[in-house]
Parts: sequence; structure tokens; C-alpha cells
Amino acid sequence: MTQGDTVKRVAVAGASGYAGGELLRLLLGHPGVEIGALTGASNAGQTLGTLQPHLLPLAGRILEETSVETLSGHDVVFLALPHGQSGAIAEALPEGTVVIDCGADFRLADAAEWERFYGSEHAGTWPYGLPELPGNRAKLAGATKIAVPGCYPTVSSLALAPAVAAGIVENDVVVVAASGTSGAGKAAKAHLLGSETAGNVSAYGVGGVHRHTPEITQNLSALAGGHVTVSFTPLLVPMPRGILATCTARLKPGVTPEDARAVYEKAYADEPFVHLLPEGQWPQTKSVTGSNAVHLQVTVDETAGRLVAVGAVDNLTKGTAGAAVQCMNLALGLDEATGLSTIGLAP
Amino acid sequence: MTQGDTVKRVAVAGASGYAGGELLRLLLGHPGVEIGALTGASNAGQTLGTLQPHLLPLAGRILEETSVETLSGHDVVFLALPHGQSGAIAEALPEGTVVIDCGADFRLADAAEWERFYGSEHAGTWPYGLPELPGNRAKLAGATKIAVPGCYPTVSSLALAPAVAAGIVENDVVVVAASGTSGAGKAAKAHLLGSETAGNVSAYGVGGVHRHTPEITQNLSALAGGHVTVSFTPLLVPMPRGILATCTARLKPGVTPEDARAVYEKAYADEPFVHLLPEGQWPQTKSVTGSNAVHLQVTVDETAGRLVAVGAVDNLTKGTAGAAVQCMNLALGLDEATGLSTIGLAP
Amino acid sequence: MTQGDTVKRVAVAGASGYAGGELLRLLLGHPGVEIGALTGASNAGQTLGTLQPHLLPLAGRILEETSVETLSGHDVVFLALPHGQSGAIAEALPEGTVVIDCGADFRLADAAEWERFYGSEHAGTWPYGLPELPGNRAKLAGATKIAVPGCYPTVSSLALAPAVAAGIVENDVVVVAASGTSGAGKAAKAHLLGSETAGNVSAYGVGGVHRHTPEITQNLSALAGGHVTVSFTPLLVPMPRGILATCTARLKPGVTPEDARAVYEKAYADEPFVHLLPEGQWPQTKSVTGSNAVHLQVTVDETAGRLVAVGAVDNLTKGTAGAAVQCMNLALGLDEATGLSTIGLAP
Amino acid sequence: MTQGDTVKRVAVAGASGYAGGELLRLLLGHPGVEIGALTGASNAGQTLGTLQPHLLPLAGRILEETSVETLSGHDVVFLALPHGQSGAIAEALPEGTVVIDCGADFRLADAAEWERFYGSEHAGTWPYGLPELPGNRAKLAGATKIAVPGCYPTVSSLALAPAVAAGIVENDVVVVAASGTSGAGKAAKAHLLGSETAGNVSAYGVGGVHRHTPEITQNLSALAGGHVTVSFTPLLVPMPRGILATCTARLKPGVTPEDARAVYEKAYADEPFVHLLPEGQWPQTKSVTGSNAVHLQVTVDETAGRLVAVGAVDNLTKGTAGAAVQCMNLALGLDEATGLSTIGLAP
Repeated sequence: MTQGDTVKRVAVAGASGYAGGELLRLLLGHPGVEIGALTGASNAGQTLGTLQPHLLPLAGRILEETSVETLSGHDVVFLALPHGQSGAIAEALPEGTVVIDCGADFRLADAAEWERFYGSEHAGTWPYGLPELPGNRAKLAGATKIAVPGCYPTVSSLALAPAVAAGIVENDVVVVAASGTSGAGKAAKAHLLGSETAGNVSAYGVGGVHRHTPEITQNLSALAGGHVTVSFTPLLVPMPRGILATCTARLKPGVTPEDARAVYEKAYADEPFVHLLPEGQWPQTKSVTGSNAVHLQVTVDETAGRLVAVGAVDNLTKGTAGAAVQCMNLALGLDEATGLSTIGLAP
Repeated sequence: MTQGDTVKRVAVAGASGYAGGELLRLLLGHPGVEIGALTGASNAGQTLGTLQPHLLPLAGRILEETSVETLSGHDVVFLALPHGQSGAIAEALPEGTVVIDCGADFRLADAAEWERFYGSEHAGTWPYGLPELPGNRAKLAGATKIAVPGCYPTVSSLALAPAVAAGIVENDVVVVAASGTSGAGKAAKAHLLGSETAGNVSAYGVGGVHRHTPEITQNLSALAGGHVTVSFTPLLVPMPRGILATCTARLKPGVTPEDARAVYEKAYADEPFVHLLPEGQWPQTKSVTGSNAVHLQVTVDETAGRLVAVGAVDNLTKGTAGAAVQCMNLALGLDEATGLSTIGLAP
Repeated sequence: MTQGDTVKRVAVAGASGYAGGELLRLLLGHPGVEIGALTGASNAGQTLGTLQPHLLPLAGRILEETSVETLSGHDVVFLALPHGQSGAIAEALPEGTVVIDCGADFRLADAAEWERFYGSEHAGTWPYGLPELPGNRAKLAGATKIAVPGCYPTVSSLALAPAVAAGIVENDVVVVAASGTSGAGKAAKAHLLGSETAGNVSAYGVGGVHRHTPEITQNLSALAGGHVTVSFTPLLVPMPRGILATCTARLKPGVTPEDARAVYEKAYADEPFVHLLPEGQWPQTKSVTGSNAVHLQVTVDETAGRLVAVGAVDNLTKGTAGAAVQCMNLALGLDEATGLSTIGLAP
Repeated sequence: MTQGDTVKRVAVAGASGYAGGELLRLLLGHPGVEIGALTGASNAGQTLGTLQPHLLPLAGRILEETSVETLSGHDVVFLALPHGQSGAIAEALPEGTVVIDCGADFRLADAAEWERFYGSEHAGTWPYGLPELPGNRAKLAGATKIAVPGCYPTVSSLALAPAVAAGIVENDVVVVAASGTSGAGKAAKAHLLGSETAGNVSAYGVGGVHRHTPEITQNLSALAGGHVTVSFTPLLVPMPRGILATCTARLKPGVTPEDARAVYEKAYADEPFVHLLPEGQWPQTKSVTGSNAVHLQVTVDETAGRLVAVGAVDNLTKGTAGAAVQCMNLALGLDEATGLSTIGLAP
């Protein structure tokens, strides 16, 4: 922040969930905001101390009902709601409110794709909160409606973007991304019990049916200037946070390892949060726990004729809540990194 | 076993490691064997109760030095040694001894590939202990030298074999396989400490440099009748056991989902340990913990034009020690499933 | 089993839960039984392959409704039901059916204690299925109604029994027992999600309110021939299976470390499943995973004037389903260890 | 900090270990310090990015040899070294340097106890860095030599201090504390491999032999004004960070639950980092991950006649590095909470 900035009042709808909790963790350390209304659905009336006991400074706060009334009167409203609920609230909030949607409702530009994957009417398209993709940062500056990207699309797109944009790979990519369980949310489901997830890796949403597939496709196709075919398989791994995405595509003829590395170095040289690791060092999710950083590495498999890029991200931070705060900073004209960190919590 | 079989005396070299421990766990439940010498290197002289406290019936056994003398006089010798050590021992053992090598030394047929990946002279090639691949079972029956496959090649090959053999995919496959940490062995290394592996997923051996790459290539190329290009990326995930391999290849034109499923159903219809799950159910590693089963599922991603096959295996059981016992059964003319189970330990 | 035994037909009520699944895992390996009806409540109609995918040989079985009709006609019926449901079913089953209740309903002898802790009417008291406590084995031989002990009472009682029975400690014990999450069952609850349990240890039921407290008190008081005061605190730790109980009591004056060890050695010298580790080796839960063994160690803290005994058990095996099978063996006159193992699955 | 403070230059000896890494994580967020020399032993010459990849802003820093020369010229020197090494370095540093020792060397006042537990000559006694114990804060203000408490003694002492100081319990306490694996350090040891620790709970240092026992005894005895007998059992649980200590002692006659709670409320009412949870809510380690907070709860077990207090702490933060920073703040006259947080990272 610069001197003279006034403190902004922010609300969080969905404060009892994982995305909401991570937003509050970050906002508590943000020098330019004051935390206003916190809302929930079935948890309304409970203290945040019961629901999010790690957020000690807010332990006495009581969750209110998610409603337009409760959320009005804030400079910024973060929506961390089940998909389908953001549109009506966003429309009813006072003009000028910065609305940042952590859900999926406004991410896709193609209404048909939305309907095919979500089975409901398309609500519209908002500026896409991944400032590191070409052209996005300018659209986010001063925006009042922002769609925060999905966690898998964030890391997959960033891991492949330089290669796809530079045209050094064919437009046919394979992404296998291993995610911690918090990506599945806090609703009680038997297959997500600790007894089930511990010591277990499983694949789900296989065969192109996961809802993040069209979002990855949209991002990469825009960069390629043509359709990119995406084979996306998510895995559930026994840890609470983090995604490691392994991304590969056939190299165009004549592309050398040095070419590939140069393309990545150039793409992210000035990015505060995307970090290409030194050669030979591969990303691990733990290095980015609680951090807004993305760790990347890229190599060329000359025998297989493929580029392999691996990216690590914290699904709740840069994958959701950190990206949301980064977008808020851009929307409000603050330094993009305010309240965010590139330091992970390890071990 | 059939009545009239005599009990065979077996030795395990490398009994203090993870593969050795799993061999003993299985052999303790095998009705046709008697456990003879147990050997180790730096651990010789210690009780097995100290080194493998879960093997209570053997707690009082003392590890001997790994040597030809110690290992001679057994019907079957299992070698669970660092690579490079098996050849000299195998040659010196009495003729007729069934030697089953859990290491890599005799898996590859191509000496140049061996030297490129292992940096030492090629020791030779033994019958390859994956009876489920066409032609292998016959070579294992009555064999006295058997090379147990690597854990990643086992599940990757079985997941892709039907499609590759049937020619329904292009010969350019991508495998991303998430493994528990026991695959990295029991030697103390800082990056394998529980403090490092917990809550962490990392990629390693990326870009075709992992030593299991030529083994997968060898298996699939034999099935395809031509060279198959393999992009293989292993991941380390926070669990002790299990591998989940996600395998994909472009479909040949005109191949339907029904075609793909039929190919897999036919390939494994009579296999005791390879199980194609009902449609819509995806493999998870926990279902095969401690079991010799491989759980598979296959689907077609029509948008991406790809076949996706996912396989789960316990890296220590069907991925190593279970396969070794299965091979011993074949070598000795016993029922292939003796002492093995398709029941996992869960949760 | 001895030759001439006929195979017994067994049913499992509550086959979709963790105790039910573990019962089936063990029964599949038991040479004297044939698996009959499998029943569930909300899961009736589903295949076992969907609910318990690790039990491959039973994957095609369909769960029936839990009812007297379904469960009748079996030699043995295992009840793995929520407490309060066993009594009515047990009464209605044909006379002579061996009913083994894995729930709490018939464990306590004191109706007032039952009502205080469970808030409902006391259903009665059945022979208590912990054969290793003095006098119990004889009561279990040939019994047709057996109450399987709770998981915490099993390991806590066995860890303290020799010292309490020998009168070498004061009748005021402290037990802190760390349990894996499967002890809390398979019902979906938010605080048991993997995202919550991973990387987390918590205490619950603190201050004597956990329902296993009166059961431990009952067991130890019977041994002491007088009331034993029990302070019991359970902890939830991030693993699916296993309990490690740390138990301590003030030593009576003049008791030496040698005295203490001698008391334990003598108590369990002939027990097939309770194993006192060699001096200096401390129990760990992993050594007993999937095994019916209990690993114990005991020491004397001369500075603090206390005996400390530590026991490890698999809460689902010796802590529930293994004990149930052990009791069935006694009830049917089979060798007590039939179908059970002292070998754990590690790592 | 207040305006006019100058930024202090700090060095960290032992920057490649877990305590060193956590110190750097906190110091990077501390507004009053500038990070100077980082030193190591066998890792000297390597980049911090290789050793602590989560500390991205320091990734390019190269570890120097731990020596008096390297560490001189800083306002504050943190020592995170194996025990026995701090004394010589501290003596040789320029007068006025604030030396904060995260090791054990200067914690114990009783030379005989030091020698009994550590087997070497006692180096001396420094002000004890647990400001929340009566009398300590004043001694730490402006100190130039500070001994940071052990992780177990921190949480155990804070959980029991109010009851012991108020004389509402007998001077005979039992502590069972479950710790994450990072407490055992980053040196590669086979029993700390992820394959061993995952899914495993074990006891170690049982029977009063753990080196933190005399430290807990010292703290509590000072409060009681007489010797307190401590039975301390540490457990290793499968998570990287966090300690949950379960502490119990017999209540003095006539003490009510309300008395007990009042004693705790009063003791910590003004403490910034020690938080008594609302009645009925029990601590969990995850709520304090990466935070300097201690979560406590206390209850009275009227049946057993015991007080039970449970405390949760992050062993690396409030248990080591956070306490070190808190002590530095006191030594330098800064606000005690500067650069520290009461917000945990969850899930």
C-alpha cells in the first residue's frame, strides 16, 4: 500500500469452508483491509472459533447468514460459495462493490461448455483472475467483478503456458495433477474421511469429465491461437493441501532443451509469484504450503520427444484464496503482492 | 499345492529391507515352504525382531552375512539386493537352485540400454517374471532363474498392454505414476524422512531418466511389434505403499469406448490377479495394500481422443515380493496363487 | 481345525463398516467358515465391491437388509452394529446360534454405569471376549453369546493387567491412548475428513467421559479385587489403524524393575497373541497392523516412582474383528488362533 | 517496533535444519531485522534454495561455515546447533551480541542433572526463554544470553503451571506428549523415514530417560516451591509438526471444576500467546501450525479425582523458533509479539 490509502472493508461469504478460512488467514495479515461480515449457510450463528479454530484473532466472531443485506456496505466481497450461487448475489450488491468469486460461475467464456460440464444456465464471464497469463493483468486492474481460476487450471495453465504460447509443442497436452484433499471441500463425505484418504491415492473425474478440463482448454487455446486438446486426470493424494501437476506435450521438431528453458525463463522473469527453479531441482508441494508462489520446472525428454513441465501450487493459496487477494490488490490499485508471501511452511 | 509335494526350503538375501520383509510376510503364510537362511549386509548379527518387528514368528532369527555359503543348500533363493550384486551370487549357487532376483540386473534384454541407465556392464537377461504378459507364463514354468519386474513397469505395462497389443492406440504413451515411499528403500536419506514426505508430493527422475523407463519401453514394444515411445514420470506421494499409474495414449481412429473395454476384458478374463473394475469404479491403492491384485480401469476421452487406463498395485506385493512368490510357484510347478491373496488391507 | 470339523456358516451384520470389513477380511482366510449373509442398513442393495473394494473375492456380493430373517440359518452371527441394536436381534435368532457382538451393549456388568455412559437401558451382560484376562477363556469356550471388548479397553487392560493383578502398583492408573481414525467409524463427519485429520492430533472424551472408561475400570477392578481409579484420555492421531496406549501407575514400595518385568513375563508366557517385547524395544502400532498380536513393553521409572507400560494393538483386528474371530474359535471349540495371524503389515 | 528503532542484523547458525528454517521463515516477516549470515556444517557452500526450498526469498543465499568469524558483527545470533556446541561460540562472540540458543546447553540450573542426562560437563545456565512463567519475562528484558526452552517442556509446563502454582494438584504429574517428527531433526535416520513413520505411533524415551524430563521437573518445581515428580512419556506420531501434551495430576481435596478453570483463566488472561479455549473445546495441533500460540484446555475428572490439562503447540514455532523470536523481541525492547502470529495454517 502507499501512504494515504484508506483501509478497505471486506466481507467473506462462505467463511466456514476451506477457501473462506484461507481467505481470512491471508486477510488478517493484509495491511489494507478490515474484516467485516463473515457469513455461512448451515453454520450461521456459530462462532468462527468453533469452525476455524486456527484463526484465533477472529475466534469470537459469529457467522451471519449469507445474504445481500449482510454483504452490502463493504468495499470488497469475496464469494466462496457452491457454484450457481454467486450471480444473484453479485447483481444485487451495491454498484462499485468489488466482487471476487472463488467459485466457477464466471470462469468460462463458452456457454455451451459451461452447460455441458455444470448442467445449468451460464451466468456470464468475468475477467479471469490469473494475472500471469498474457493480457489478463490489465483487465484486472480496477475491475469490480473477478472470477478466480480453479486450482488445477492455475497450475496446469502456468506450467504449460510458455511452451504453448511459444509454439514449441504440439497442441495436444496431457496433464496428470495430484491434489490434496482440501480441494474437495469441507462437506462430510465418506470417501473423504481420513480413514479412507490416508495411505491412498485414487484417480477421479477421469476421461475428460472433470469440470476443470474446459477451463484448462480455454486458457491454453487462447495462448495457442487455436484449439488445444487437453487430457486431464486429477488424482487425490493423502495430504490436506497442495497440487503437483505433471504436464507433457510433444515437442515440435528441432526444439532443444535450451530453447525450452529460455522460453520459460523469459515468460516468468518479472512475475512475483511464478518461480522457475534452478535446473535439476524439481517442485514439491510442501515448498509452497501457505504461500502464493508457484514452483515450476521444465525439461525435455529427447528419447520420447516430449516436453515435461511440472508445477507445484497450494490449492488453497495461489490456487484459490491467494489468487483472490492478488486480484483484490489489482482491483484496488494496491501493490499486487500486498499481504501475500512467497514463503512456504515446511516441513 | 497338491498332496505329495515336499516342502521347499527358501532363503532370503536382503531380509532387513522392505522387499525382504514383504517376502517373509508372504512366505510365512505359504504352505509349501520352510524359511531357511535370512541374510543382510550391515545388519548381519542382529535379530529380525529388531529390524522387522512386524514379523513376530521370526523375531528371534538372527541375520547372517549374505554369502554363497549361507545361501547354498536351499531349493529357492530370493535376492533382494542392491543392483549389481545378484549375478555373482546366482552363478555360484548350486545348480538347480531356483534363483529369483527382485533387483534390476536381469530385466533388460538390451545391453546398451542397461549400460545407459545403470552405468555398469550388463549381466544378462533372465525370464521376466510378469506372467500376465503374453508368452511369459510358459517361460517361467520350471525356470531356475527369474527376474522380478520393477514395480512401476508392472503396473504400467499391465495397464497399457491390452491396448497396445490390440493396436487400438498409437505407440506413444504417457505414464505418470504416483508411488508410496517404500519404493525408495529403507536406506536413511534426508529427503525421505517422514518430516519431508508427509504432506508432500514431488516429481523425480523426470524426462525419461528413471531406470524403469527402458523396462516399460521393452515390455510395450514387444507387445506392439514395434517401438513404443514412453514418457514416464514418477511421483513420490505421502504413503508407505502403493502405486497408482495413470496411462494415456492417442486412440486410433474409429475405436469406441466399447472396443476399448472389450479389449481389456478379454485380456485379463482368466488372470487370477489382474482385475478390471466394474465400469465407473476407479482404482485406489488402498484396495490392493498387501494384496497381489492389480486393479485396473480404462476409459475413452472422446473429446481429447485418448484412451486413459489407470492401474493400482502394491509396490511391495505384486510390485515386488508377491510377484516373486508367484514366480516361485510357477517355477516349482505349484498353483500360481499359492500363498498369495487378492484381499487388501483397508482402511 | 481338526479333521472332521464341519464348515460353519457365518453371517456379518454391518458388513459395510470398518469392523465388518475387517471381519470379512479375516473370515475369507479362515479355513473353518463359509461366508453367508452380509447385511447393511442404508447400504443394503449395493455390491460389496463398491463399499469394500479391497475384498475382491466378495466384490459381487450384494448387501441385504439387517433383519432376523436374513441372519437366521447361520451357525455364527457377527453383529457390527451401532450400540443399542444387538439385543433385539440376538434374542430373536434361533437357539444355538453363536452371536458375537462387536458393539458395546453387553460389555458392562453394572447397569448403572451403562446407563450413565450410554443413556439407555442396560441390555445385559455377556461373557467378555478378552480370553487373556484370568478366568475369561473358560467362560468363552462353548459360549453362544459373546461381547467383544472395546478397542481401548483391550490394549489398556492387557497393558496393566499383570501389574494390577500382582498388586505391584497402586490402584490409581493413568491411560493415554492414541488411536487411528477408523475407531471413529465410517459415518461421514466433518471433523474426521482427511483434510482435518492429516497432520493433526487432538484429544477427545477427556475427563473420564469416554465410554470405554467404565469398561477399563471394570476389567482392572476385577483383577485388583477392589476399585481401581482410571484416568483415561483418548487421542486421535493421523493414521487409519492402530492404538498405542501409554499406561502408568505408582509403584508399591520396594518393587524393582526386575519384579515388574517378571510379572509381565509370567502373565503372558503362554498367550498366543500377547507378546512382551525384548527389553529396550518399545511397541509401535505399525508392527501389529492387520495382526491379532498385542505388543507390550514395561519399565520402571525409578525417579518418578512409577511403572510405565505401553501396548500396541490394531484397533480393527485384535481390537475388534480379530478378537471376534478368536472368540468364535473358542465358542466353536476350534484352535483359538485359527484364521488369525501375529504377523503385521509393514511398512 | 516503534519509530526510530534501527533494524537489527541477525545471523542464524544451523540454517539448514528444521529449527533454522523456521527461524528464517519468521525472521523474513519480522519488520525489525535484516538477515545476515546463515551458517551450516556439512551443508556449507550449498544454496539455501536447495536445502530449504520453501524460503524462496533466500533461495540464492549460500550457507557459510559455522564459525565465530562468520557470526561476529551481528546484533543477534541465533544458535540452532547440536547440544554441546553453543557455549564456545557464545563466549567468543563480541560483547553485547544477543545470543539466543535454541539448543539445550543452558536450560538446566542443576549441573548434576545436566550431566546425568547429557553425559557431558554443564556449560552454565542462561535466562530461560519462557516468558509466560512467573518471573521470567523481567529476566529476559534486555538479556544478552537466552536459553530457548525445549519443545515438550514449553507445552507441558504451560499446561500444568497454573494448577501447580496454585497448589490445587498434588506434586506428582503425568505427561504423555505426542509429537510430530520434525522434533527429531533433519539428520537421516532409518526409523524416521516416511515409510516408517507413516501410519505409525511409537513411544520412546520411556521411563524418565528423555532429556526433557529434568527441564519439565525444574519448571514445575520452581512453581510449586517444592519437588514435583514428573512421569514423562513422549510419543512419535505421523505428522511433521506439532505437539499435543496430555497432563494430569491428582486434585487436592475440595477443588471444584470451577476452581480449576478460574486458576487457568487468571494465569493467562494477559498473555498474548497462551489461549485457554472455551469450555468444551479441546486443543488440536493443527490449529497452531506455524503459529506462536499455545491452545490449552483443562477439566476435572471427578470420578478419577484428577485434573486433566491438554496443550497444543507447534514444536518448531512456539516450541523453538517462535519462542526464540519472542525472546529476541524482549531482549531488544521490541513489542513481544513483533513478527509473530497467533494464526495457524489449517487445514
